[in-house]
Parts: sequence; C-alpha cells; structure tokens
Amino acid sequence: MPVLGQNQYGKAQTRVVRVGRAGDTHQLTDLTVSLAFSGAMERVHREGSNEAVLPTDTAKNTVYAFAREHGIASPEDFGARLACHFVDSQPTIHRVVADIEEHRWERLGGHSFVRSGQETRTVRVSYDGERVEVLSGLTGLTVLNTTDSEFHGFVRDRYTTLAETTDRVLATEVTACWRHAAEDAETVGATDWNAAYAAAREQLLAAFTGTYSLSLQQTLFEMGSAVIERIAGVQEIRLSLPNKHHFLVDLSPFGIENGTGDGAVYVATDRPFGLIEATVLRDGAQERIPVELTRP
Amino acid sequence: MPVLGQNQYGKAQTRVVRVGRAGDTHQLTDLTVSLAFSGAMERVHREGSNEAVLPTDTAKNTVYAFAREHGIASPEDFGARLACHFVDSQPTIHRVVADIEEHRWERLGGHSFVRSGQETRTVRVSYDGERVEVLSGLTGLTVLNTTDSEFHGFVRDRYTTLAETTDRVLATEVTACWRHAAEDAETVGATDWNAAYAAAREQLLAAFTGTYSLSLQQTLFEMGSAVIERIAGVQEIRLSLPNKHHFLVDLSPFGIENGTGDGAVYVATDRPFGLIEATVLRDGAQERIPVELTRP
Amino acid sequence: MPVLGQNQYGKAQTRVVRVGRAGDTHQLTDLTVSLAFSGAMERVHREGSNEAVLPTDTAKNTVYAFAREHGIASPEDFGARLACHFVDSQPTIHRVVADIEEHRWERLGGHSFVRSGQETRTVRVSYDGERVEVLSGLTGLTVLNTTDSEFHGFVRDRYTTLAETTDRVLATEVTACWRHAAEDAETVGATDWNAAYAAAREQLLAAFTGTYSLSLQQTLFEMGSAVIERIAGVQEIRLSLPNKHHFLVDLSPFGIENGTGDGAVYVATDRPFGLIEATVLRDGAQERIPVELTRP
Amino acid sequence: MPVLGQNQYGKAQTRVVRVGRAGDTHQLTDLTVSLAFSGAMERVHREGSNEAVLPTDTAKNTVYAFAREHGIASPEDFGARLACHFVDSQPTIHRVVADIEEHRWERLGGHSFVRSGQETRTVRVSYDGERVEVLSGLTGLTVLNTTDSEFHGFVRDRYTTLAETTDRVLATEVTACWRHAAEDAETVGATDWNAAYAAAREQLLAAFTGTYSLSLQQTLFEMGSAVIERIAGVQEIRLSLPNKHHFLVDLSPFGIENGTGDGAVYVATDRPFGLIEATVLRDGAQERIPVELTRP
Repeated sequence: MPVLGQNQYGKAQTRVVRVGRAGDTHQLTDLTVSLAFSGAMERVHREGSNEAVLPTDTAKNTVYAFAREHGIASPEDFGARLACHFVDSQPTIHRVVADIEEHRWERLGGHSFVRSGQETRTVRVSYDGERVEVLSGLTGLTVLNTTDSEFHGFVRDRYTTLAETTDRVLATEVTACWRHAAEDAETVGATDWNAAYAAAREQLLAAFTGTYSLSLQQTLFEMGSAVIERIAGVQEIRLSLPNKHHFLVDLSPFGIENGTGDGAVYVATDRPFGLIEATVLRDGAQERIPVELTRP
Repeated sequence: MPVLGQNQYGKAQTRVVRVGRAGDTHQLTDLTVSLAFSGAMERVHREGSNEAVLPTDTAKNTVYAFAREHGIASPEDFGARLACHFVDSQPTIHRVVADIEEHRWERLGGHSFVRSGQETRTVRVSYDGERVEVLSGLTGLTVLNTTDSEFHGFVRDRYTTLAETTDRVLATEVTACWRHAAEDAETVGATDWNAAYAAAREQLLAAFTGTYSLSLQQTLFEMGSAVIERIAGVQEIRLSLPNKHHFLVDLSPFGIENGTGDGAVYVATDRPFGLIEATVLRDGAQERIPVELTRP
Repeated sequence: MPVLGQNQYGKAQTRVVRVGRAGDTHQLTDLTVSLAFSGAMERVHREGSNEAVLPTDTAKNTVYAFAREHGIASPEDFGARLACHFVDSQPTIHRVVADIEEHRWERLGGHSFVRSGQETRTVRVSYDGERVEVLSGLTGLTVLNTTDSEFHGFVRDRYTTLAETTDRVLATEVTACWRHAAEDAETVGATDWNAAYAAAREQLLAAFTGTYSLSLQQTLFEMGSAVIERIAGVQEIRLSLPNKHHFLVDLSPFGIENGTGDGAVYVATDRPFGLIEATVLRDGAQERIPVELTRP
Repeated sequence: MPVLGQNQYGKAQTRVVRVGRAGDTHQLTDLTVSLAFSGAMERVHREGSNEAVLPTDTAKNTVYAFAREHGIASPEDFGARLACHFVDSQPTIHRVVADIEEHRWERLGGHSFVRSGQETRTVRVSYDGERVEVLSGLTGLTVLNTTDSEFHGFVRDRYTTLAETTDRVLATEVTACWRHAAEDAETVGATDWNAAYAAAREQLLAAFTGTYSLSLQQTLFEMGSAVIERIAGVQEIRLSLPNKHHFLVDLSPFGIENGTGDGAVYVATDRPFGLIEATVLRDGAQERIPVELTRP
C-alpha cells in the first residue's frame, strides 16, 4: 500500500499592500505572501476528511487581518508572526513555511511612489513549534563588470572549442538567500531586519564589483564569504548565478576590428547559459530545519 | 485573385551591447533592436523570388557593425542611422521602421553596473526616403498615489454595482510614446535625444504625482498635456494606462475596521483591469507617416 | 491648447468560464474578454467629469450576466452581443471593440477536460451603431516543416554573410486574423462561427504544409490566399509570421558530419528572429471600420 | 573561514532539435537540456583555478555531438548517456544531473508538424559513478472536473469565512515527477521510456478524472497511488497541484440566479491559489541519490 511522504498545503501568492498615512508622508508596503502548512494530514490524503484542514482561504484572510492589526515592520517579522500564529493556534498544524516577496517602491512625493529596481527581496520563515528560522534573500539583481574577468586554464576534451580569454564581460542575475541563526519568536520581532537586509545586499554588490575574477565560481565564493564574514549571525548563504554571456561579435567579415578596446560590441545571449550554484557556510554553522522536497 | 496589402519584413530583437572604455570610467549601452523593411515586395510574396530581399540576417549584421563604426549616441540617433542606411542604399527598400528598446543600467563603479528601474525606454524611427519621424517613449513605468484620487458621478445601469469613492489608491503602469516633428537625417543626428527623453519622463511623473484625480482619463490628459506643452516640437503623445486596481479588503467579518485611514490594507489585483488609452495632440500637429496595420 | 485625439477605455481580461450541465455530458467554455468603449469622452479627459462614463466594473459585470442569460454560442456571437448592448443602451458610447480569447479544452470524460493545444482562438468584434465587423483569428499556432524550404537568390551587400540554402527547416508561430464582411447584429447571431473558424484554421495548416517554400513571404501569401479563396465572405487576412530559426550545428570541429541527411541536428534559437507580416485582401474588399491607434 | 558547501555548475537550456529523415516520414525530437556537474571544485571557488573545470561551453557542444552520434531514443536515455559520459571521462566530475524538457509535436504530414499540448515532459537523470537514477515527469498539464468535487467539514477559526460546498469545479495544473529504481547505464539504455511515460501519464489522467473528490489532497493521493501501484519499478512520485479556483459569480444584484445547474458561470482567478504538494512512496522504496539544495 502506498505511503504518504512529506507533504504541505497552503495559499500561494496573496497580494497585500499596506498604506501608512500618519501625517503627510505616507508609507507603502507591497508584499506577495505564500503560506505552507504541514502536520496531521494523513486522513485528508487517504479519506478526504478535512477535520485537520484549516482552509487555504483562511490563510489568505489571516494575511490581510494581520497586516491591519499588527502592521508590517519587515517581511521577516510579518512572516514570523504568521508562521507562529498557525502553529501555536492549530493543533493539527505542526510546521509553517512563509515565503514572502517584497516589491520595492521609491518615493516621488508625500503620497506618490514609483516601482524601482529589477530585484525582489525574498524572505522564507519556518517555524516548527520550537525554533523560528529566517532566510533573507533577493532575486533578479542583475550586475555586470565590463572588465577584470578572465577565463582560462580549464580542462579540455574532444568537444572543447572554447577560446581562453584574459578580458571578458562578466554579468549575472543574482539569486541569493542567507540563513540567520534560529531564534524564538520574540527575538525575531526585536531585530532590525531591514537594516540587516540592506547590509547584506551591499556586501553582495561590493564583492561582485571588487573581485578580479578568474571564474564565476570564485566571484560567487567571494560574494558568499563577504556576507558570512561581515553580517553577524548568518549561518549560510546559497547563491545561484547564471552566467549571462556577452560574446564579442566577429566583425572581421566586414573588415571591422572588434577587440576589447574602446567601443567593443557584444551580443547578449539568452540561452543556453552557464549556471553556477553553491552554498557557503559559516564554520560550525547551526543545522537548519529540515527542508521539504516536494518539488524535483 | 487575392491582393497583397501592406506588408513588411525584417529582423526582430537583435541584442547589442556596447562598452565604451576610454579611460577608467567605462560606458555601457544595452539595446534590443528590431528592423522592418517595406518596398518592392510583390514578387517575393507571389513567386518566392528573393531578388528584392535583403536577408534579415544582414539586418542583424548591420546593427552590430554600425554600433562598432558609429557608436550609439542615443537610441533615436542609432535608429535613424540604421533606417536611412537601408532606404538610401537599397533600391527595393522604400521605408524602414526601427524599433529600439534601451535597457537601463546604473553605475556601481568605474567598470561595474546594476540593471535599474522597471521601465524600458522605447524608440521608433521611421524613414520613407524623405522624412525621418521619431517616436520616443517608455513602457513599464509603474506609479502609485496613495490618495488624491476620487471616482464618482458615473453612469449607472442595471449591471452597475460599483460604489462611489472620494479617496482611493490610484496606480498604473505607464506606456507612452510621443512623436517629434519629422526632420531630415542631419537634424536628427544633431539633437540631444537623451536630454529630451529625461525631460519628457519628468513631465509624466510630475503630472501623475501632481494631479488631483477625478478619473484616470483626467490624469492621462494631464500627463499628455504636460508633455505637449513643455517639450518643444512634440506633435502628439499616446498613452496607455492600465488601472492597477487596489481594493480595500473587507475585514468586517473579523470585527476589524479597514477604512482609508492610517494602516489601510488593500488587495492588489492582476485582472481584470481597467484600461484607459488616448492620444493627446498639439493643436495643428503635423501629419504622421502612415502606420502599417499588420497586426489586428 | 492640447487636443484630445482618438481614445477608448474599458475593462481588459475578464475571465469567464461557463459550464453546460444539461445531461451527463457537460460542456465547457473558457474565455478572456476585453471591452473598449469610445464616445462622448471629452469632458472626462478635460475635467474629470464621469457623467458620460459607464464604469469598467460594469463592463465586467455585464460579461458575467450575459454569459448566464444568453450563453456563449461562439466568441464571435458573444462579442457581438456585448458590443451591441453597450452602444444601443448608452447614448454616450458610440463604438465598442470586444476582444475575446478562447482557451481550448479537450474532453476526457463526461465532466472532465484537459487544456489542449498551444494556440488561442481570438476574436475582435467592433460595432459603431451601424455595422458589426467580425475579425476571427488565432495566435500561438507553431508549425514546422523539416524540408521543402529553400532560401537563395537574395540581395547581397557589404554586410551580407548568409549562405544560400536549398534545404532548410522552416518553422513559425502563426498569428492570423481574418475579417468577415460587416453585417447587422441579427446576421451575426445566425452564423456558425465555430465551423467557419475550424475551416479557416484547416486552410492555414494545409497551405503551410503543402507549400514548397522559396521564402517565408511566399508561404505567408499562400496561407492568406487559401483563406481568402476558400472561406466565403472573408475580406482580408493579416498574418504575422516570426521565422523561428533552426540552424544546422557545425560539428566539424569534432570530426562529425552534420548535413541535412538523416539525423541532422539543429539549434533552435530564440532571438533575433525574422518577422514577416502582411495583409492579403479579397479583390474589391469592403472597407473596414477605422481602427484606433492608441498604441505605437 | 567560510566553508564551501554543496555546489554544482553546468550549462542550462541548450536547445537541440533532431530530424530523422530515413524515408518520406520524418521524425522530430525537440529537447531543452540542462547539465549540472559536481566534484573536485574546492580550488575553483577559493582561488579561481579552472584546472578541474570542464567549460560549460563543452557541455553544450557535447549535447549536439551526442544527438548526432547516438540519436535520441528518449529523453531518459539521452540524459543517462550524457550523465555517464562526463562522470566516466572526467576525473574531477563526480556526479552529473541532467534535466531535460521534451516539447511535443504532433504530425501534420510526412515532413510537417504542429506543437501540441500545453504540457512539457520532463526528465531528470542523476549519475554518481555507481547508480543511474531516473526521474520521469511532466509539468503544465491542466485538467478540470466540472463536478464530483466537494469541500466541507474543515477546521474553522476566527478568520474563516469560506462556505462549505458539495459541488464545485476542481481544476489544477499538474506538475509530477516519479522516480524509477536506480539502475546501471546498460539497463537504462534497454528500457522503453516512452511507453513508461505514456502509461504513467494515462494513470494520472484516469485518477484525476475518476476520483470523486472531497479535497484536492485526496485527489493528489489517488493520482500518486495509481502510478505507484500500476507502473512497475516506480519508487516514489512527487505531485504539486495548484488549486486553480473557479468561483461561482454572484449575479443576485442583477436578479439573476447562478447556482450549479446548467449554464453556471464562474470566474477563473489567477492568484492567490491553493497549493497542495506531497510525495507518495512505494512501501519499502529505495533510497534516492542525495539531492543538492542550492536553491532556497
């Protein structure tokens, strides 16, 4: 007889916007919130009994009610508050994962805003009834160095045709998430997550910009190490860096030189693309709350 | 026997990146270029004879070669140079439309950049052998006012249930293009298009921010008028403004008030959405080069 | 003083699903409906007076109410019914354009369905108080011939490097819309639009498949002519055919031959791509209802 | 000092199309292939030394060369051949994961094809030098039942407003992957993977269609159990089922009834959506090759 393995359910992508209107300078917070519940879910899978199932519609309602009642100090704080609420109030829910995206707006005036940046700030908060684990991160941060990147000395086999280079454009679209040491709910609520996020983002940009790169792996490790070494409490960081290739165009058929000097022209390709992924850990990093593998 | 109507062909979405490396402060220009040719194309449609057809692959090659040989002062200038080249050098090509998107990067350091903004600058240059017509524009500029927007006094019929409101969130994602007076190629090359673009974008933002709005149509007209009145030479502007609805969430089932005061919570919906589109013209505006209707 | 040019407003992308449940074999209709109104809209743009404005929310409500009250015989019929309703009942609305997408489902059982096909059936119905104009169409229909396509004899200039070929893969993603002779509302309601659509789609596929192609323009013209010549009443057809390039991979660096014989290997590229667009008309075609140009 | 955790690199999304031309009835295979390598990669991360790094460009070349030299019997077979090649020929590469998507085409004629279906067949093959582990799957398979679905008897709390229902539309977009017992490369090559895929897909459709559903979890478990019980050798299956909500539209403000009888009208919403995910295992299932967690 088939066995039920790991499982979770919840409401994905609830869009909540909160406007602070104390005074003439309004505040705008714009989140997409996804909640996933795990617990005593054997019977609903085997028999369709919903006696342990809080509806996903209720998850959505709770997001809106909590935004109104408690405000949104940061996505980390808001996610922790939601995760703890469900585990602590529902005996059949034993663990909650809250995934939150924050959409950035820049101020144009007292009550006017413009969407800014290409990247999205991401937060995953997990709570298992004992520990609150916070992963902060970002996705869609596209950066490019016009020089200070080489690639040579690699393995060659029968199918290798790539030329070595000592000066290439290096571009990537950073996806990163960094795990903070697990805490209790109270400590989470007392942390300045927005400042911590800004500091980590700055480290990532500085390491990308400042690294003379011999491989994208090296750049990745420098970016990860900068966050581990300079942001207190971060246990690990996971980075996924697509190599957004920029190839020099061969203009020699037209009698035009196109080296890497001033005015070089590149083709930016979409795919295929290199993809470099790694985890960098603090020495002696805390174990993380086991991750569900419900996707391949 | 079927008749061949309006038609065009070309190469769409050539991705070209140019790096200026004179000195330690590099320059980065990142475009997506689409070219469409019209002309003596009866035989290729009826018989498959390519004797009048310059390959679209050549269009792509020319984009790269021109980026190297002539640089890219602005997308308007680059588009005009390309459009004139094909009409002036190929007897079978009688009109060219160049559509260009510019992807924005912000400087992080001497040779480092980060993709910025959500919006894309757009340019359409048409050349028919006589006049160069330049349309500058942008798309994807998302703006929001948290107040100073009302909507009431509208028509009601059997199917109308919408409540009137004197204080709502107003948000839209601006697509705009404005047409400059047609010129010859030389004048186009002598214009500071980047300054003109920045000025028009600023007018759009200022009009959106500064208008106390009784309808999105009113806001649109104010935005269009600001560009017509303050940017010299602009003949017309076309605006497409989706109404990105933000609805107050009804929290009364939970005994929670959610008015429009401090801390109001909204749901941001994706669709359906209102869509407001209009053209605003300078009084006595020049006629434009006839537009091909090859799409519905 | 700026002049208000052509303009329209309405509700875009209302998602409506209707289930026919007469008997054990259910029927499923799945549409996305967009409505655009034009008329006496000077004051709303200049002063924000909504006295002529039927809310877009009402447009949405009407879509749902009409689906329930009148059913959906075809997207053409449903669009015409909606368009006529607003013009005939609202003095300030002088013209309506209804754009409808139909999402295809295939039957799995009496009450079970699976989404099928990659393409979407499209309909645009315009009504100006006098005539109903119906454009039927489709988008996203991707087709490929593995042979019977050549490309040579084209113009060459300084920037031309393309090799001639007498055997290439030809692939495209068809967007087409064909205009029927304008009618009154009653005649529209009496037409079997589903049969007409199926017949036109079959002609497009047959012409793509059966044409030995010397250029994609030739294939386009054959496809358009087939619809004009074999589907009664069609006045014109507009086709937009991206050339989805499939290039033979050069495997000679590995000592591997890769001609066009059995087992040839191609790279399918995303962009840039050729784009061929044209209108084919019936000789003496009826004039169409003027099209608004609110986009570039 | 920071520690390098799990890591992998490779080439993502190589697009390869193969045409079989033996005789007049051509064959078309269309894949997107991503390869990820793990192994002795400490130095490249810490020092930028590429002495252990086979370029990702070589991965791309190998995909094309293997498609020409060995053909593509199935994505499973092709993935295994690629994975084994790199591990067996490169001492620094210790494990390879090949992710392959197959794009479906339907025959129109001897050499003509049309893209069909909304879903994509997916394959993941992992090889660690000892065992070949094959995960077959699909994504984007959208199915809908117009009846035979209830939802009631669920937990209620302060924020629960959802009404119970005994007749609702149930729709989902299936993502599934099922793991076969690990084998050696030879056995993989001798299996008829296309038949196995078709059989599993049929089980998923039959279970969705045939289950009278009291919750989407129950439907999920039935779908998973059907594959486990009827497809020999499958160790586990992971299912991710978004609940694509279809809500009855409230037409009572217009005096129109809209129950669940004949002609009921629904709004199909995009988000938020319920998301149900679970793994169903064969009793005594083989352990799988440890999965890398390089994404959050």
